[in-house]
Formats: sequence, structure tokens, C-alpha cells
Amino acid sequence: MEIYIVSDIGGTQLRVAAYHTTDLSRISVKKIPTQGDGLTPTERLIHLIREVKKDHHIKAIAVAAPGYLDPQKGIVYAAPNIPGWKNLNLRQILNDNFQAPIFLGNDANMAALGEWKFGAGIHHRNLLYLTISTGIGSGVIVDNRLVLGENGLAAEFGHVTLDPDGPVCGCGHRGHLEAYASGTGISNYVRQQLSAGIHSRLKREDSLTSKEIFMAAQQGDPLAVEAFTRAGKYLGIGIANFLHIINPSIVILGGGVTQAGELLFTPMHQALQESIISPQYLNNLKITTAVLGDDVGLKGALALLITEFCQPIQNSSGS
Amino acid sequence: MEIYIVSDIGGTQLRVAAYHTTDLSRISVKKIPTQGDGLTPTERLIHLIREVKKDHHIKAIAVAAPGYLDPQKGIVYAAPNIPGWKNLNLRQILNDNFQAPIFLGNDANMAALGEWKFGAGIHHRNLLYLTISTGIGSGVIVDNRLVLGENGLAAEFGHVTLDPDGPVCGCGHRGHLEAYASGTGISNYVRQQLSAGIHSRLKREDSLTSKEIFMAAQQGDPLAVEAFTRAGKYLGIGIANFLHIINPSIVILGGGVTQAGELLFTPMHQALQESIISPQYLNNLKITTAVLGDDVGLKGALALLITEFCQPIQNSSGS
Repeated sequence: MEIYIVSDIGGTQLRVAAYHTTDLSRISVKKIPTQGDGLTPTERLIHLIREVKKDHHIKAIAVAAPGYLDPQKGIVYAAPNIPGWKNLNLRQILNDNFQAPIFLGNDANMAALGEWKFGAGIHHRNLLYLTISTGIGSGVIVDNRLVLGENGLAAEFGHVTLDPDGPVCGCGHRGHLEAYASGTGISNYVRQQLSAGIHSRLKREDSLTSKEIFMAAQQGDPLAVEAFTRAGKYLGIGIANFLHIINPSIVILGGGVTQAGELLFTPMHQALQESIISPQYLNNLKITTAVLGDDVGLKGALALLITEFCQPIQNSSGS
Repeated sequence: MEIYIVSDIGGTQLRVAAYHTTDLSRISVKKIPTQGDGLTPTERLIHLIREVKKDHHIKAIAVAAPGYLDPQKGIVYAAPNIPGWKNLNLRQILNDNFQAPIFLGNDANMAALGEWKFGAGIHHRNLLYLTISTGIGSGVIVDNRLVLGENGLAAEFGHVTLDPDGPVCGCGHRGHLEAYASGTGISNYVRQQLSAGIHSRLKREDSLTSKEIFMAAQQGDPLAVEAFTRAGKYLGIGIANFLHIINPSIVILGGGVTQAGELLFTPMHQALQESIISPQYLNNLKITTAVLGDDVGLKGALALLITEFCQPIQNSSGS
């Protein structure tokens, strides 16, 4: 039987699945820790693909990987959470082992592709996907095609400046969307306000998470509520910017921070309304949450293979 | 003979040209004021097309028009500088008169397409075009295709927020790139500084233009120099944002304000270097000025027809 192999590589988990190439039904899926057994993550990946492959023939392999990578060249430049993944020619390594075409995508781009093809974004030609957790990842579909840019570095919506004098971002620059609206941005803000003497049930600890802040907000803690209001406001301003640039028909929000729900979304919608230059950007615009959960990377990698092997690229609905 | 008709409609001038459909050589070009003779701009456009057409057969017509419009529907929603152009079904009107396929594009989008196909952007697959004059218009090519968005409202890079508390933009919102780096933004800033008592050879007049400020800067006026330094700085921050989103291989800058040259470009390059999250965005990135001048709208409309009638869309080099 001929199969597609797809993999989603994260800092903690490594997932591999096999799909029929004809009806795209899933034959097998396995998940292991990314590190362990004295093997490198790359060796563990190769072993897991062998295990999932069994005696089937691989038509192609697609991998969703974190960090900076070049999908055209198949090289991972830097994946900070995966030991040894620096200037790694993953395409070459997998091709040497499996003699099949290898495709590679940034995890946030693959998630966008997955939600577009199989999730919340079906039927949409122009889509913006943001995943808001420790950082902010993103992907964009324009006219039914994933936007990669010249070196595969497009769609870094988390690193768009909203205020050149704003708070410091994980990347070292100031005032990026990620510095305001990511989990890290939210907890940094709360710590800073606590240091300034603002009263709260929260304690100023380095380990303070946006989840703890969310729980305090649910109990009515004013600082915790304000932290999400502020994050939502900047998220709304950021999304208005992106609508002006991309004019999508859907914005899909994923990632742990979105579980704060209306605490985040109400101020986000208000800022978006206030920041948009024409109500036409909101006409028929759907803003919704991601639906694929932990499967999103695998489904995105599968979507990449389908679009690569079924030219011209069309959404499953043909719309 | 079979011809393409292209037109570029501005607030002051109305241009129409005819091109051979085979070798794309220009047969004729005419330019008249947009208003006059007791005729509406639409009537003047139709007359001018008839004049340029002569007895040739029109294969298709493409029009570059200002303001908000829907290229799919062929409707101009609002063109503030052209009397009567509000919710105007230009496609229908031209089709009724000339019985040919009609294509319509926003002037900045058409300029981007023109520079990509015939100007500074030949050979580039991913291109960002900004025209900096009274306002800031823009267009973007991703993977050899013009980005229009769901309702044709994409690529409004001038209306991206760089600081939610920044100066008021022509659109009424605060802190947009246009509010900092357009001619209007530059002269508003100088007027505001003069009101605050800053010394300068410039006079605080409503009619103060960025050209006058440029001439004062050339003579060493510190406020005038600072006004361009500030505009260049925000332009650099804005371009960094756009590189993070689009990752193009070329940025083309057009419009009257760019004639300030290094006064604007030196601080722009500095801010861009400081704002970019990875030097890879600048690898092989070309930043250059537009080359098509007043012809850019006509050439862009022609490029639109070529791409519509020669699928799959490819740049002239085939690269």
C-alpha cells in the first residue's frame, strides 16, 4: 500500500502518522517524547517513521518543525527547543533514509494550512491564523496558497511593531504584538505591575503563568482582568493591521491563551472595531477559534502533501 | 487590428493608451484633464477611449482607478477626488459602451503590478511597492500574483498602526505609517513643531508642503532635516513589519516624497536594520526606487491584462 508519512516535531513531543494516499484515511499514529534513550531527536524521528511505515511504500514525507527553517531548501536553521537542530539539512537526512520526496514547513504555517484544509478554515480562500501561547505564531493563506515569502520567513505576525517604545519582546525588540498579547507578554505585564506596587492576589514570581493569571481573573482579580483586557486590546489593533494588509475572510485563533475566551475576545473585538479603516473589512469576516487541537501539525503536514501532489492547489470544497 | 485599451484615472489627469495585443507595442496614448467641457469624468473617459480606439477591435480594457473599489465586482465604491464616482459600476458602463471584457484595479495595486512586470521589479516573485506622496499607497506581489484579498481591500500598508497614541492619520485613526511618513504627515509634524515654538526658516502655514520642507532641509534647516529623519525612521519600522509579514525580495519606493533621497533613506535604512528580527530578511533584499514615472498606471493596467489573458501568471522573465 502507498502511504503519506507526516510528522509534527515539538520541543516535548514527536508525532508521526501514516495516511492512505488515495482516500487519506489514517492508518497509524504514534507519539513519543522528542528526547530520550540516548538518541538524538533526529534519530528518534527516523526510528518512529520506520515504526509507523511498517512495510508500506512511502509516496512522500512532510514534517512540521519549529523555529526558523527554509521550506524550499529543506534546512532547519534554528529550532531552539530541539537539541542539535541548527543548520540541519532535514530533507537530505530523511531522503537518505527513506528515498522519498521530503517536504518541510514551519509549525505555525503548517497549522494554518491544516485549519484551512481540514479545520475551521474550510471554504475560505484568504485566511489568517494566529496561535497565541508562550509566543505568537502565525500563518496566512492568500488566494488558496500558503504565503511563504522569498526565504520561507513570511507570516511572522507576532513580530510586528505596535509601539516602538513598547515592552521588550522575546526576540529582543520592543513593542511587538507578541510582547503584548502572548502568555509571556501577559505574565511580564503582571509582574511589572506587581513590582510597581499594584495590589493583586497574584504573587510576583518568575514562574507566574498566564494560566494562573486567567484563574485569578475568573475570581475577579482586577490586575489579572486588566492584563487580559490589555492583551486583547493590542491583539485587536494587530488584527486590524493584518486585515488592512491581507483582507482575509477568516481569522482563526489558536493556542492556550485563547482559552481565556471573552476575557481576551471582548476587548479584542472592541479594539478591532475602533482600529479598522473601513467597515468593509469586517463584512463577512469570520473570527473564530481553531478546531484541530493537538492534531493540527499532522493535519497541516498532510495538507502540504495534498497541495503539492494535487496541482492546481484548491481547497477541499473547490471553492 | 486587435488592441488592448488601458486607462489611468487620477484626480487631475485621465490617461488612455492602446497597445497591440501581440507584441504589446504602444499604438497611441492620450492625456486630458479629468474634469471639463461640462462632461462627467465617466463621459470624458468614454470619449477618450473612442478617440484612442479608432477603428481597431478591443480585446479587453483595464482601468487603474483611485479610491476604494472591488476589482472582482468592477465597482468603484468611493473615489474622493473624482466627482460622481461613488458606488459606480464602471465595469458595466464600459462594457455597455465597448462590448469587451473590463478589468479594474486600485491605482496603487496597478502601480505595483506595473513595476513588477515592466519596471524595477522584473524577475522578482515577492514584491512590496509603496508610493509615498500626499498619502501612502501600496501593492504587494506574492508568488507572482497580486494580493487583492477577499474584497479587493488588501495591501493598505499606509494604514498600519505603528503607535496607537501617534499622530492622527488622514483616515482619522492614530499612528498609522501614513500619519508619520507621507507628505501630509511630514508637513503636519513641522507645523506642530512650529506651533510649539521650534525655530526654523519655515513658516507655519496651512499650505506648507513636504517639497518646501525638503528645500529647507537642503539648506540645512534643522527642523526640516529632523522632519525627514523622523519620517524615514517610521518608514524603516513599517518596512521591517512588512518584511516580517511578506518576506519579499524587493521593496520599491515611489511617489514624490522619495525624491528627498538620502534625507529619507538613510534614517529609513537605519531603523530597518534595528527593527528586523533576523538578518535573513535582508539577505538578497533589494530596496530601490520606482522607475516607470507617470506611465506606471497605464503599464500596470497593461500588466493586469497580460496576466489575465496569459495563464498561468508568470513574470516576463519566466523566473
